[in-house]
Amino acid sequence: MTSPSELNLIALRDFPLVKPQDDLAALITDSLAQSNLALADGDIVVLAQKIVSKAEGRQVKLSSVTPSAKAEDLAKSTDKDPRLVELILQESNEVVRTKGPVLIVEHRLGFVMANAGIDQSNITHGDENDSALLLPLDPDGSAKALRQSLEATHGKKIAVVINDSVGRAWRMGTVGLAIGTAGIDPLWDRRGDKDLFDRTLEITEVGLADEISAAASLLMGQGDEGTPVVIVRGVDYRSSDGGIAPVLRDKEFDLFR
Amino acid sequence: MTSPSELNLIALRDFPLVKPQDDLAALITDSLAQSNLALADGDIVVLAQKIVSKAEGRQVKLSSVTPSAKAEDLAKSTDKDPRLVELILQESNEVVRTKGPVLIVEHRLGFVMANAGIDQSNITHGDENDSALLLPLDPDGSAKALRQSLEATHGKKIAVVINDSVGRAWRMGTVGLAIGTAGIDPLWDRRGDKDLFDRTLEITEVGLADEISAAASLLMGQGDEGTPVVIVRGVDYRSSDGGIAPVLRDKEFDLFR
Repeated sequence: MTSPSELNLIALRDFPLVKPQDDLAALITDSLAQSNLALADGDIVVLAQKIVSKAEGRQVKLSSVTPSAKAEDLAKSTDKDPRLVELILQESNEVVRTKGPVLIVEHRLGFVMANAGIDQSNITHGDENDSALLLPLDPDGSAKALRQSLEATHGKKIAVVINDSVGRAWRMGTVGLAIGTAGIDPLWDRRGDKDLFDRTLEITEVGLADEISAAASLLMGQGDEGTPVVIVRGVDYRSSDGGIAPVLRDKEFDLFR
Repeated sequence: MTSPSELNLIALRDFPLVKPQDDLAALITDSLAQSNLALADGDIVVLAQKIVSKAEGRQVKLSSVTPSAKAEDLAKSTDKDPRLVELILQESNEVVRTKGPVLIVEHRLGFVMANAGIDQSNITHGDENDSALLLPLDPDGSAKALRQSLEATHGKKIAVVINDSVGRAWRMGTVGLAIGTAGIDPLWDRRGDKDLFDRTLEITEVGLADEISAAASLLMGQGDEGTPVVIVRGVDYRSSDGGIAPVLRDKEFDLFR
């Protein structure tokens, strides 16, 4: 695998607002047609986590949540709604760090992120202040289903990446990161590759799916401008059915917990 | 500012090997001409840190380095060359974490990164095993000078970003991150922006320069294939002379130190 020389990223414009039980593959197909675009072999379809969560009915009415004692405590120290904290705890394996309003957890999927990636903005409910949007149950599974459907419809070999905007420990600003993948190895393993002087490259793995996610994020805004789907064209990648798992660092090598 | 609908990233092919005191702006201008490309207003020129460091003579022969006692100790525990560890310490404000072979520091520029970003591969010395490449002294300054030179030569209003491939605490694989900028606000401040339902957006700042850096990194490989310069076209950004500083998180809000 070598680096390509040109990349094109195309956002599907005016993507419709997604509702529970919407068929995302069908919406993508319609949107491609409206934009006069056709999928090509090797394309990577990147979807914002929010529309996958919405289609899968991952909104929860806060009024349906009963906070545990632990949630009440954490809610006091973080100055958050205890029902939201209860959801965060339900979606987490453990609390990693908390200070002031910040609550960083290991999400049940293994990702270390603030608030278990739960989002309260941009929800399609009557009472906007009363719902939270959780991450999909199984982003890899969602990506796989979408890939199968799109490949069957369009007859092209593609990959699917689901991204999310996530904060970082030492840097301001969110960046797009991959939370689920299908049909693409999320890491570019360069172990054994040589540089121009035949020395073994020092960096052995490139976070390919994360870089693709960050690139697509440039076009997504926050998924609130009708551009939650981006086609990435020109990346040379290895196919894989292993999902996002290779990206999660073993706790054993995690120096910050 | 709104999200655009299309992005194009173009790598300058067959970029020459960079040597100390090379004029990078001149090399870029030549390369653009060879590729039949012209800079356009709004373009972002992304350069791999390695070529900036090389042009600025930031290689150090390890044989010229005398390790301190502290370096010798750390070298034992990390199983690294003590002369390399001495350089890492010289380039750092403090050691943040070390375990086994891993040595994470706060670089003198403020970035938290492994080995102070010092790289040993792909060095243009007779004895390849004897040199290390440090980060530029002042990446923002380097970006600014490049920007001024390119704008003067090409008569277009552009931005410059210097990126580097960096590992992460909880995820495998490196991603491109910005270490210096000129002519672009590295953060997209969306404070006060509303979503489709007129609710204030939850995410207030997007790491724009970092996402641009990650996207460009997709085309750079490791800067060892002759593609260490990428033109990013189509990003809507705010101009700024503040450099990369806004991206560095205040230690006060750093939960992991």
